[in-house]
Amino acid sequence: MRIITVSREFASGGRELGKRLAETLGFQYYDSEIINEIVRHTDYDAGFIDKVSDGEVSFNFHYGRSFGFTVNQPAIDVLAAQHKVISALSEKRDCVIVGRMGDIILEKKDPLKIFVYSDAAHKIARCRERGELHPDATDRQILRKCRQIDSGRRRTHDTFAPIRWGDRRGYNLMINTAGVDIADIVPGIAAYAEGFFKNSSGS
Amino acid sequence: MRIITVSREFASGGRELGKRLAETLGFQYYDSEIINEIVRHTDYDAGFIDKVSDGEVSFNFHYGRSFGFTVNQPAIDVLAAQHKVISALSEKRDCVIVGRMGDIILEKKDPLKIFVYSDAAHKIARCRERGELHPDATDRQILRKCRQIDSGRRRTHDTFAPIRWGDRRGYNLMINTAGVDIADIVPGIAAYAEGFFKNSSGS
Repeated sequence: MRIITVSREFASGGRELGKRLAETLGFQYYDSEIINEIVRHTDYDAGFIDKVSDGEVSFNFHYGRSFGFTVNQPAIDVLAAQHKVISALSEKRDCVIVGRMGDIILEKKDPLKIFVYSDAAHKIARCRERGELHPDATDRQILRKCRQIDSGRRRTHDTFAPIRWGDRRGYNLMINTAGVDIADIVPGIAAYAEGFFKNSSGS
Repeated sequence: MRIITVSREFASGGRELGKRLAETLGFQYYDSEIINEIVRHTDYDAGFIDKVSDGEVSFNFHYGRSFGFTVNQPAIDVLAAQHKVISALSEKRDCVIVGRMGDIILEKKDPLKIFVYSDAAHKIARCRERGELHPDATDRQILRKCRQIDSGRRRTHDTFAPIRWGDRRGYNLMINTAGVDIADIVPGIAAYAEGFFKNSSGS
């Protein structure tokens, strides 16, 4: 199976890029299916799973009032289920997986690992377009939100992977979406993927 | 004019990628022409110019026996000439420029800035293939050579640019050539470039 994983900075357009790439290549785009499968495997609700799965919940240690620490067991359960679900789904069809630690979980299957990033101005514009924020949010507030989410992703990633989140050595292709129309660049990325897999399956 | 600059780690295949990309797109590939033009503008020989131009010579300060320092004037002369030559050549035709600080010199012309990198194993293999090294060179010696050359490139780059050499924020596309056949991925990069320039010229 040919697998593409898309890691991304928040508000860089990674999800849009992943979806369009899957469409162009005729690959399966796995997203809500992953959440639904984890719901089937665990007792937790989809909202919680979604947050843990995408690195937005601290999962490893909860520092309490004392000097001790406790493991966030529900988060660990979700990550374990996610590992099984993503491994299984990747066996079924050529696919694109955005976030959810796909790059780490599927590392041994030689995925094309893409990292998508952008600059502050374009992240702010993208956040405003999405309309998920309070209309009075300032640019500074938006960027703080972006940094917070990226910190969660980095923390989760770096706990499980030897190469740090966003370090070029951990990816095959890094794409800066600042100033480009994602629809314009997807055909090139798709062609790149074809070339990438030609080599990896031929060797 | 559409301009593509290729920055690269030593032995990552950036030059091959740049040449093939120019061929595929029908862009001019500038290389020896840059050196020849600098020779015309200065009194230095092509070998020296080539080294300075590609960041392999320390140009800013020469720390002498005393506590003073002196500017390496010949190197400064070459960099000044290079700046003029590359600016002028970029006005003539759509082009690909590998190294030689093209990304910095042409920054304001909105080039597609590519960074090419690889991993240790593939750099060693590439160096051995090229046959420029002593046949008894060990892997460790090869990697030390790679690091030395990259240090020079980094030093030169970082003196003139606000974003550090190899930092993803300074590039539009970063390509890991480890494990891929460059000929296989160039069509995708060419298609990516078409998409990139469609947007930048249309806005």
